[in-house]
Amino acid sequence: MTVADTADVRAYMQSLGQQARAAATVVARAEASVKNLALLATAEILDASRSELEAANQKDLDNARANGLTEAMIDRLALTPDRIDTMIEGLRQVAALPDPVGSITNMKYVPSGIQIGQMRVPLGVIGIIYESRPNVTVEAASLCLKSGNATILRGGSEAIHSNRAIARCLQDGLRQAGLPLEAVQVVGTTDRAAVGELITMPEYVDVIVPRGGKGLIERISKEARVPVIKHLDGICHVFIDDHADLVKARNIAVNAKTHRYGTCNTMETLLVHQAVAAEILPVLAKDYAEKEVELRGCEQTCALIPEAKPATEEDWSTEYLAPVLAIRVVADMDEAITHINHYGSHHTDAIVTENYTRSRRFLREVDSSSVMVNASTRFADGFEYGLGAEIGISTDKIHARGPVGLEGLTSQKYVVLGDGQIRR
Amino acid sequence: MTVADTADVRAYMQSLGQQARAAATVVARAEASVKNLALLATAEILDASRSELEAANQKDLDNARANGLTEAMIDRLALTPDRIDTMIEGLRQVAALPDPVGSITNMKYVPSGIQIGQMRVPLGVIGIIYESRPNVTVEAASLCLKSGNATILRGGSEAIHSNRAIARCLQDGLRQAGLPLEAVQVVGTTDRAAVGELITMPEYVDVIVPRGGKGLIERISKEARVPVIKHLDGICHVFIDDHADLVKARNIAVNAKTHRYGTCNTMETLLVHQAVAAEILPVLAKDYAEKEVELRGCEQTCALIPEAKPATEEDWSTEYLAPVLAIRVVADMDEAITHINHYGSHHTDAIVTENYTRSRRFLREVDSSSVMVNASTRFADGFEYGLGAEIGISTDKIHARGPVGLEGLTSQKYVVLGDGQIRR
Repeated sequence: MTVADTADVRAYMQSLGQQARAAATVVARAEASVKNLALLATAEILDASRSELEAANQKDLDNARANGLTEAMIDRLALTPDRIDTMIEGLRQVAALPDPVGSITNMKYVPSGIQIGQMRVPLGVIGIIYESRPNVTVEAASLCLKSGNATILRGGSEAIHSNRAIARCLQDGLRQAGLPLEAVQVVGTTDRAAVGELITMPEYVDVIVPRGGKGLIERISKEARVPVIKHLDGICHVFIDDHADLVKARNIAVNAKTHRYGTCNTMETLLVHQAVAAEILPVLAKDYAEKEVELRGCEQTCALIPEAKPATEEDWSTEYLAPVLAIRVVADMDEAITHINHYGSHHTDAIVTENYTRSRRFLREVDSSSVMVNASTRFADGFEYGLGAEIGISTDKIHARGPVGLEGLTSQKYVVLGDGQIRR
Repeated sequence: MTVADTADVRAYMQSLGQQARAAATVVARAEASVKNLALLATAEILDASRSELEAANQKDLDNARANGLTEAMIDRLALTPDRIDTMIEGLRQVAALPDPVGSITNMKYVPSGIQIGQMRVPLGVIGIIYESRPNVTVEAASLCLKSGNATILRGGSEAIHSNRAIARCLQDGLRQAGLPLEAVQVVGTTDRAAVGELITMPEYVDVIVPRGGKGLIERISKEARVPVIKHLDGICHVFIDDHADLVKARNIAVNAKTHRYGTCNTMETLLVHQAVAAEILPVLAKDYAEKEVELRGCEQTCALIPEAKPATEEDWSTEYLAPVLAIRVVADMDEAITHINHYGSHHTDAIVTENYTRSRRFLREVDSSSVMVNASTRFADGFEYGLGAEIGISTDKIHARGPVGLEGLTSQKYVVLGDGQIRR
């Protein structure tokens, strides 16, 4: 669709919102079997629509090349057969997950004789704002649907044809299950004003989940009039304590940095207790040299690793997302914790130690969404945590911290069962 | 303190924020015994400071009279000996509650061999904005402290002397426990710009809890740059089903309306199944007449209760907070649920029924923070629910719904225990 001016965009987004709100009521009540039917039907339909999907994606790819997008962006945009397979497999996995909606916990009697518990309920309407990867459309929509929410998806304008084609498959799946098509809506305009509308309709949208670069997320958080479940930086640390098992320390420090460079749970700064720095750092320097990781160190680090460059103040708060590592030697665990809480992004931080008391203190005192003892920061992930799915990793403190799965897309209401009790 | 201009207010609020952030780190780590010591010491100090508190309060009362405040406002402002007793008792109750911080739940092994659970942690710095009642200062500060948070309290300007006197007692209590005084700070200026600053410092304040009238809360929600745990309307319903035990129905309908008129969990609209309307409504009309409750009904209601006035469309979405009740006869439970979800405020709604299937459907389909079967809406309260305390009742969907106790002032982080595991 084409939208002529801002007034039209507003009216259009309002109508999407109204429809989503109405659909949300139906989806909230839908039984697991019906939601699963929609997910599994969509998987079948995607499989049968490969040529349409690829044709739509080709239009986006052609436009991207014509518009001079980078190869990295074009790669993210591409719906390869493998990626279509992954979308289909993802739908089946989400269908197989237990339904979080309606589960009741902590039912207990209180002195007045009433019985009180909490029931897990959908949030309502979730707005997802993301950048070029069209496979997010299926991933986000399936998680929202399974958790009983309606979704309004706003992908990047460069992926509009792909996203529309995927949306048609999703809506066909909803139709087969007898669910309202408006339970999953893809914003049909590429007008940037649509995002501004989506994040300022508290009457129709209950929460926004932005996925993309830090700039996008900061802008949305700043302008949104509804709660935002967001992920900003991943400046993750590993602290090698002087009571560390140095074999574990070496494995973890190498894995946390080099397993993948571009992920948010990759270690960006290594902290080493001064008592073991001389023993472990030269060994690690060789490991990192083999992987061509650039090292930037504090003064003590540079004294132990001649090839390390001096780190600047800025390095301690930089998310490299690249084969670059900052290293700092610290006097003790207190200095490490202070460094992490000050320079880190409250994402994921690990200690390597065999000391019981330090492990307890580190777990308690490090203010991050995931705090680990003797494990690689790379484990901070909804799948590794057994959530079965992940819509993102929250660095917020409110509502959801860390990997957000189906439960993070729900809330809890109180349920009260009585026998005619009244308040005295 | 006096503040000359807005730049000064900003600098002042920033310094409160910085101090709160630093104190929050210490309070987050404090053991329960230390936090309880501060609470119990404050109770003693308040008891020993009655004359200072009353003198400070007298200044506020004199100003209030000079400024022509209403008697209702002056009453809310007064620190009577009874109210001081209640503050002292409240501190002791909060001290007696279990510490939510640090509790770990759901520790489980996942296939990689790491063990994952969630630890309850403070939110950080909580800004409380409230109107005239100075006893809120102690109530809010004690709950925030017990849950490991630092607090910045902004009371009404009309209560500034009382609030400062209470703040001194709180800070003396913190001092006796060896906790930083900045863990509880009362904003020392009555400049209105201070509120604007407090709600737009995400670097120093993690969440805002406004307590007061709807106008205040709406304005804060609109302008805040940090999450707001809020309570808007309480338009609560009781639905009398045709399968209701009419004795229970009568008791509940009378209690929910007349136990107290000015509370948010008071019933504002009564819905009655058409099959029992002729039997129950005339009986209830007499009960309400005895209590001098004005009735405003739909057409069918007015036919059954001659003294009822016709309700307008506006009545269905009005929170009277007064001896006024809207009554509507509905065709069936579906119509009742549709009415509640449309006109209600998602606060607290109850069904009276003996029917098993209807009770289950009502619990599932009514989208409110508390949904009840055969109990008075007046039970929606942190104390009645056994939370031991209540900072407010949230009508939000994110983070906390319904009565918010100590847990609502905390979040959960993931903790991961390993033996050197790395990601493959």
